[in-house]
Amino acid sequence: MSNDQAILMIANSETDSNLYYATKFLAPDPFIFIQTHGHKTIVMSDLELDRAKAQARVNEVLSYSKIEQPLKEKGLADPKTIDVVDACLKERGVKRLLVPGEFGFRHAEALRAKGYFLTTKPDPFFEERVLKSSEEIEAITETQRATEAATEAAIEVIRESKIKKDELHWSGGVLTAEAIKKIINVKLMEMDCIAQHTIVACGIQGCDPHDEGSGPLRPNQSIVMDVFPRSGRTRYYADMTRTVVKGRASDALRKLYDTVRRAQEEGIERVRDGVEGQTIHQKIMTTFEQSGYETGPKNGRMQGFFHGTGHGVGLDIHEPPRISKAKWTLKAGEVVTVEPGLYYPEIGAVRIEDLVVVTKTGCTNLTRSPKVLEL
Amino acid sequence: MSNDQAILMIANSETDSNLYYATKFLAPDPFIFIQTHGHKTIVMSDLELDRAKAQARVNEVLSYSKIEQPLKEKGLADPKTIDVVDACLKERGVKRLLVPGEFGFRHAEALRAKGYFLTTKPDPFFEERVLKSSEEIEAITETQRATEAATEAAIEVIRESKIKKDELHWSGGVLTAEAIKKIINVKLMEMDCIAQHTIVACGIQGCDPHDEGSGPLRPNQSIVMDVFPRSGRTRYYADMTRTVVKGRASDALRKLYDTVRRAQEEGIERVRDGVEGQTIHQKIMTTFEQSGYETGPKNGRMQGFFHGTGHGVGLDIHEPPRISKAKWTLKAGEVVTVEPGLYYPEIGAVRIEDLVVVTKTGCTNLTRSPKVLEL
Repeated sequence: MSNDQAILMIANSETDSNLYYATKFLAPDPFIFIQTHGHKTIVMSDLELDRAKAQARVNEVLSYSKIEQPLKEKGLADPKTIDVVDACLKERGVKRLLVPGEFGFRHAEALRAKGYFLTTKPDPFFEERVLKSSEEIEAITETQRATEAATEAAIEVIRESKIKKDELHWSGGVLTAEAIKKIINVKLMEMDCIAQHTIVACGIQGCDPHDEGSGPLRPNQSIVMDVFPRSGRTRYYADMTRTVVKGRASDALRKLYDTVRRAQEEGIERVRDGVEGQTIHQKIMTTFEQSGYETGPKNGRMQGFFHGTGHGVGLDIHEPPRISKAKWTLKAGEVVTVEPGLYYPEIGAVRIEDLVVVTKTGCTNLTRSPKVLEL
Repeated sequence: MSNDQAILMIANSETDSNLYYATKFLAPDPFIFIQTHGHKTIVMSDLELDRAKAQARVNEVLSYSKIEQPLKEKGLADPKTIDVVDACLKERGVKRLLVPGEFGFRHAEALRAKGYFLTTKPDPFFEERVLKSSEEIEAITETQRATEAATEAAIEVIRESKIKKDELHWSGGVLTAEAIKKIINVKLMEMDCIAQHTIVACGIQGCDPHDEGSGPLRPNQSIVMDVFPRSGRTRYYADMTRTVVKGRASDALRKLYDTVRRAQEEGIERVRDGVEGQTIHQKIMTTFEQSGYETGPKNGRMQGFFHGTGHGVGLDIHEPPRISKAKWTLKAGEVVTVEPGLYYPEIGAVRIEDLVVVTKTGCTNLTRSPKVLEL
């Protein structure tokens, strides 16, 4: 960074993980972050001032109203956020700003009108965020253990359920996707983990990889369970998918499962510092094709393997790196999912997902849950 | 909108409520939204295509990869999001774009480089979003009922707890803020509501209005409980705060409580279509001052009433309108909190919050929970 340049963010750290990463301070309303030569300043409302002083990992916490006051005295009746930013930047002699790609258009326009020169850079905005510290890996692992415990509790209920005609029954009634999701989500909340959009998708529902699933669970059909909570304490996510069948899988479903499982394991074996994500993804595509599983639209819907093999997990559930069609060279310290899937409405849906840490020689699998098809 | 203008959003609807509002489609990764003359188009990845076709309330769902393919054939090796946007807009003959204030800087720059002219407008971006339909009020009310049930379960535990020296005891151990938060959050999850940052703040902790609280709960001290979950089903939030004391409140704390309670009730009485939010907020400030409760920094921290009186609640937990120093004329159909508070480390913290719908003649209070100080 040149002498007169600063990093500027204006966001709420509840939804903007870069801002939380930079400050370790969670606030539901937007605040100002300025970084010059590693010196971090945040500007907080009266409401957040004292909490920010106690909690934020920054060099300086300024009061928004104290900066606003002299602007009013100078005759500015209703100072805007950018007037306050301007006052801070003037004091620092800064005219050039480095902002995230997601920096808001309105603020960018207002800054330009005041003569600031804004640039951005390719993601990730904080390159070091992709490489997880041991503290971060510990946090992710803790969320992963909670994910496994909740998923296993759900699997146990499916295992104990009884088959009555074409429905599963449990605890005196029909066992539904909603009931299993509630078991998972409540168990996670008991462990201080917040789950949203948990997927429990049976049969054809699972063939749409983001269908959350609903209604009665059926015997002898694939049930895809994808669980990806965030820790309420550390804010780090985890992510795991298991596919099960209560009863017997058809030969075709069994073959589908074995193919995905083998591809997933081979994918994990290929993860290593320096390997291209594209290469791993392409190998899995090829394995599927060679096994006779084609990908593309058929009968008016996508079939086969039509999502990426993996994504980074950290303060966001989807973050760099990617193991997909996109270019990305894996680096030691990255945390990434490996989750190939195959989806054919006439057979069923299978996705198997583990979470791994890239190392110099391969990867460390953070996932402990067994992979069992038939319950 | 002129003939060649379109609304453009590129965001994920999980965090961008305007995009969810416009499409009623939830997706964790960014997608493209284009609206021309009320005709809504979204452009989806292969992964989301079928689910979007089934769920999104839009006129047209396009395939990202189908738009990307001809660009590749024309020699663009790696088309970016904006190349795909450009292809869509060219087909529609659009050169002028209306974008939200939060529209990303990087995309804005890329569009400008292609000759597009971008403008924004003051918030709220969709003005009609502020005025809640009966369906939306029903959804908010449902979340409010869950909030009340969870808060009342927590209050019941505090009521049943025993005072042992300077701690509350329950179920064989010390009763902590964390335990009460878990009771609230788990109960909410059982009702399909997702709670984050629930506040259970005892004594001096409550004097920082966003301190979430931790450690043992104490007798004869204020306990502020602020609960604001989102429905996992409808996505609408609710918000409620109650302040209680297990044991006896000091005379000073009782007077603080009565003053806040009276101010809150008077605030609610003033809410009506056409009334200025500023006026209501200022009246409460004046009432507090006249009762001898000053606001400002004292002994190195903010004391008194140093937050707004109320904020809108809907698909975001903080959205327009505001009842605060900011200018806002209340309109029938708005849903807003009324939540004055007073915070003095030497006395305690009191905040009381209800959620109301503005009407032509006053407001309808959506909140049913009683207001009781001593348990």
